[in-house]
Amino acid sequence: MSWAIIGTWRMALEGIEKSAKLLSGGGSSGDAIETAIKMVEDFPYYKSVGYGGLPNENGEVELDAAYMDGDSLSIGAVAAIKDFKNPISIARKLSEERFNSFLVGYGAEEYAHKNGFERMNMLTERAVIHYKNRLKETIDKGLSPYDGHDTVGMVALDLDNSMASGTSTSGLFMKKRGRVGDSPLSGSGFYVDSRIGGATATGLGEDIMKGCISYEIVRLMKEGYTPQEAADKAVFELTNLLVSRRQKAGDISVVCLNNKGEFGAATNIEGFSFVVATEKLPPTVYTCSVENNKTIYQVATEEWMNNYMKTRTAPLKLKE
Amino acid sequence: MSWAIIGTWRMALEGIEKSAKLLSGGGSSGDAIETAIKMVEDFPYYKSVGYGGLPNENGEVELDAAYMDGDSLSIGAVAAIKDFKNPISIARKLSEERFNSFLVGYGAEEYAHKNGFERMNMLTERAVIHYKNRLKETIDKGLSPYDGHDTVGMVALDLDNSMASGTSTSGLFMKKRGRVGDSPLSGSGFYVDSRIGGATATGLGEDIMKGCISYEIVRLMKEGYTPQEAADKAVFELTNLLVSRRQKAGDISVVCLNNKGEFGAATNIEGFSFVVATEKLPPTVYTCSVENNKTIYQVATEEWMNNYMKTRTAPLKLKE
Repeated sequence: MSWAIIGTWRMALEGIEKSAKLLSGGGSSGDAIETAIKMVEDFPYYKSVGYGGLPNENGEVELDAAYMDGDSLSIGAVAAIKDFKNPISIARKLSEERFNSFLVGYGAEEYAHKNGFERMNMLTERAVIHYKNRLKETIDKGLSPYDGHDTVGMVALDLDNSMASGTSTSGLFMKKRGRVGDSPLSGSGFYVDSRIGGATATGLGEDIMKGCISYEIVRLMKEGYTPQEAADKAVFELTNLLVSRRQKAGDISVVCLNNKGEFGAATNIEGFSFVVATEKLPPTVYTCSVENNKTIYQVATEEWMNNYMKTRTAPLKLKE
Repeated sequence: MSWAIIGTWRMALEGIEKSAKLLSGGGSSGDAIETAIKMVEDFPYYKSVGYGGLPNENGEVELDAAYMDGDSLSIGAVAAIKDFKNPISIARKLSEERFNSFLVGYGAEEYAHKNGFERMNMLTERAVIHYKNRLKETIDKGLSPYDGHDTVGMVALDLDNSMASGTSTSGLFMKKRGRVGDSPLSGSGFYVDSRIGGATATGLGEDIMKGCISYEIVRLMKEGYTPQEAADKAVFELTNLLVSRRQKAGDISVVCLNNKGEFGAATNIEGFSFVVATEKLPPTVYTCSVENNKTIYQVATEEWMNNYMKTRTAPLKLKE
């Protein structure tokens, strides 16, 4: 018996630090997922998740989130929800419903309101500056505005051998109103089965959903692949498939965990980072690189860590 | 080289008759899917798809649809869209977009409006009577109101060996506002790859998405299973998994087609019907039964066919 938790991107660190303590003390995988993702949602400098998330092309912050219970396979999800503080908590609450467990737009807001979730305008002054600058850099010059889609996705295993997974994102920056990516979609953005393991993805949702990559990774682990083998196989097979059929593949990065607490990560881009904590490993940030359809990762350097937070919190000026 | 088209439920018949002619004359699988599903959407007596579809608990008709191109793997989808005549056509149009190809709620309506799609109030007088009667039968008596979720899903193969798939539904009758089922979700409601085959599902979306069943069926066909073997294996494995983890499984029915034009169908309920047409088989309705985790089907009897249309079009009275 062991516990473990893994999350996409460096931004998962603070939440995973908190949830590692929770898990080591016997807390549930579900609580670990919700606690850790809430911390990412609440931190205003992470500009692709929750508060401070970047807005759609209309200047509105529309959020997506999902939660899955690896024992019962129950799923809850919201998409294109506005003005609620913690989409992950709404998704988790929805996972208790046998019917109507994936709600979008106004219907999701109505449910959240009726169930007492906290209202909050999720748009920050900083996000507005990002938005205005992006308009000047792209739309005003006739360029494609789409950028940034760094979902936080996590998988956790607790001491009772139960697993859970969750995702939360503000989606593609400058997306169209109502756009949904892979994050709230079962099998694409996340999948977990306590008897096997779980996986979660981040990147261009429109391409990730063409391969149901999280389901595929869990399936490969069931077939006997190690988490790392499963992650690499799924990411590079999907990337190659997309390139062969449509000449290009969007960004795809994944992390996964099996029910023994072994983990894997894979990416088709340079610059993907992830965070893991297990019984034997304190919360650690890894940075990835890619060589010959294999993902290599190393503990993030102190310089990288300092630089990460410095660029996230650097003063931001409105461009002339 | 051959052509084929398959669809869920007897309601697919008229559309498949029309698209069979189109395919036999060299028409594309994409046109066949859109043409056939539009016919189902337009027919007012099919109460779970398009015009005449049953409303949500607020009395509003919210529609979901998806389209997938088996060559490029491009996907377009809409969910919780109101007041547009042909959701399948909007989904197909969205599949041409590299970004923002899955839109929900008001954002989907905005896109449809800007792209010239026809507006229409999709609520019929007959659907209002169904709704009011349902309120009396269930809510007024403290019973669960949820009923009916008969998505039309189709897969087609054309003479150029290209495949496409599509779905369209008004979703669970009496659903909550904004509820999304499996129909617009890649891998759950539909999946198609022209090099292998395609599959599409109907039933309780909340349970279907726990197994990514359409992706799984295509994957099994890739592994060498016949379409019928793949369909039965996927449906009964998911049903058994759900029963073992949560004591019950919702309705799950699927149809599939490989890239040779061979088909399969499977269901965990009594009463599922489907329609197929191929080069060698004129448009034919089959009715299914289940024995020992295998699906058996036979050509629908004349009596069954007559009874089907009679019950669909029978006068409907408001209950006292």
